[in-house]
Amino acid sequence: MLDRLLSGTPLPGENARPSRFLGAVRYACLNGGKRLRPFLLVETARLFGIESEGVLRAGAAVEMIHCYSLVHDDLPALDNDDLRRGRPTTHKAYDEATAILVGDALLTYAFDVTADPATDADPAIRAALVLALARAAGIGNMVGGQVMDLEAELSQAPHSPEHVIQVQAMKTGALLHYSVEAGAIFARADEKTRTALSRYGKALGAAFQVADDILDVEADEAALGKRAGKDADRNKATLVAAVGLDAARKRRDALAQEAISALDVFPAERAAVLKEAARFAVARKN
Amino acid sequence: MLDRLLSGTPLPGENARPSRFLGAVRYACLNGGKRLRPFLLVETARLFGIESEGVLRAGAAVEMIHCYSLVHDDLPALDNDDLRRGRPTTHKAYDEATAILVGDALLTYAFDVTADPATDADPAIRAALVLALARAAGIGNMVGGQVMDLEAELSQAPHSPEHVIQVQAMKTGALLHYSVEAGAIFARADEKTRTALSRYGKALGAAFQVADDILDVEADEAALGKRAGKDADRNKATLVAAVGLDAARKRRDALAQEAISALDVFPAERAAVLKEAARFAVARKN
Repeated sequence: MLDRLLSGTPLPGENARPSRFLGAVRYACLNGGKRLRPFLLVETARLFGIESEGVLRAGAAVEMIHCYSLVHDDLPALDNDDLRRGRPTTHKAYDEATAILVGDALLTYAFDVTADPATDADPAIRAALVLALARAAGIGNMVGGQVMDLEAELSQAPHSPEHVIQVQAMKTGALLHYSVEAGAIFARADEKTRTALSRYGKALGAAFQVADDILDVEADEAALGKRAGKDADRNKATLVAAVGLDAARKRRDALAQEAISALDVFPAERAAVLKEAARFAVARKN
Repeated sequence: MLDRLLSGTPLPGENARPSRFLGAVRYACLNGGKRLRPFLLVETARLFGIESEGVLRAGAAVEMIHCYSLVHDDLPALDNDDLRRGRPTTHKAYDEATAILVGDALLTYAFDVTADPATDADPAIRAALVLALARAAGIGNMVGGQVMDLEAELSQAPHSPEHVIQVQAMKTGALLHYSVEAGAIFARADEKTRTALSRYGKALGAAFQVADDILDVEADEAALGKRAGKDADRNKATLVAAVGLDAARKRRDALAQEAISALDVFPAERAAVLKEAARFAVARKN
């Protein structure tokens, strides 16, 4: 679906898309990522028996937001990363101007795809998805977390565990949480079910990011596809730096367990895939 | 409304907003711009007797998109402008990382504000606004036009009038057209009325940009607040470069007339303000 949406067929009312630029958009987004966010969105909808083209579209949209955030974060003025998933970052493979505009295009297109009637016939569902996505990606969450991360890096002061947990919830957790929330929005899930899924999404997002911090310390450069140990060099707000490796591992495992037990309100066989996702989030090697 | 929306009061479900960053967001967006887009949106809705808080919110949202595009366009990797409306550009007043994130935050927040139930009780209106806004701002229009502009600058080849007209329609015209379209969406205007307004929006957008090209050549630096003649230095796709100053002036005036006559389907007294806007678009000095 992501591939098809980024295939360059102009949408109704659109002009032709510049082709070199479209290549850069595809480079940034179709690069063998884990696609964890679309996976969570699709599997959460499936928990309610919903499988549709529209769910795949919403999944593609959240991946676009994720990809845009990586492209902008990698820019020289921000993290200045040359490698991402073992390949040159977008501004290295193309140029900085292109990378900035690729991010802008992906961010905007995510809302286009989500608000399109092809995503759901009910405009209330589409408007709710757009609102939840914009909140997760915006100044109160993903962008705000990036800002706090940047400020922490400049301050060179040590970070309290509470600060690290908040930054990570904003920067990474919110979009993972949205992915789960979106499945519940498609399903028009009741309040109790939404609360359970929200608990799952929050714990999973936190576990995922702590696992990332641990991987940064443990992994060697080749396995991770980016320079290991880089976070520490930069005074990034990581939980390993704030509480140490052992405590971070304990927290990671407790969060994964919290995510798994949040799903106990669902029949075991239906929740199995999402529970497995929580295990994967902490056991992965990259 | 824009001021209030950018006042830093966290939205429901949001975390605190980093305050230096919020200052940068406000710097980028509350800077004495003409607010032409919100004006067009509000006045088009008023044409149908609609005046609401929600219309003002949608107007603030389109201004956020406009501001984000200026902040990103001014970056060193793109136009590398130090001055905007006589003040240091956002990356000069703050720093490049902040400017990139300010743009991202404004772009995302525009969709948040538009999709919020406070904008209209009817989710069909909100979803339609989001979709039209994302199409106008995205790869097929505003971002795509910026890409084509950038490619033209690099090529150093002369531009055909047709190419210039297309780039300008995408880069500047589409968001002005959206502003008018949004008023019609709020009003649930019928097909015939929408077509007339669309004609107005397209002609106005084109007239506005040609007027800008002419101003760039004519105006002295102090009056315009940016370095005059800069477009020509850079092989920007301008209509003056493509057809000469006299032909550009003729086209500008013909487009303004086209915009004005498109409104003849409305009673004269109700359409007076929008007609005046078309006259302003070509007569302004900055």
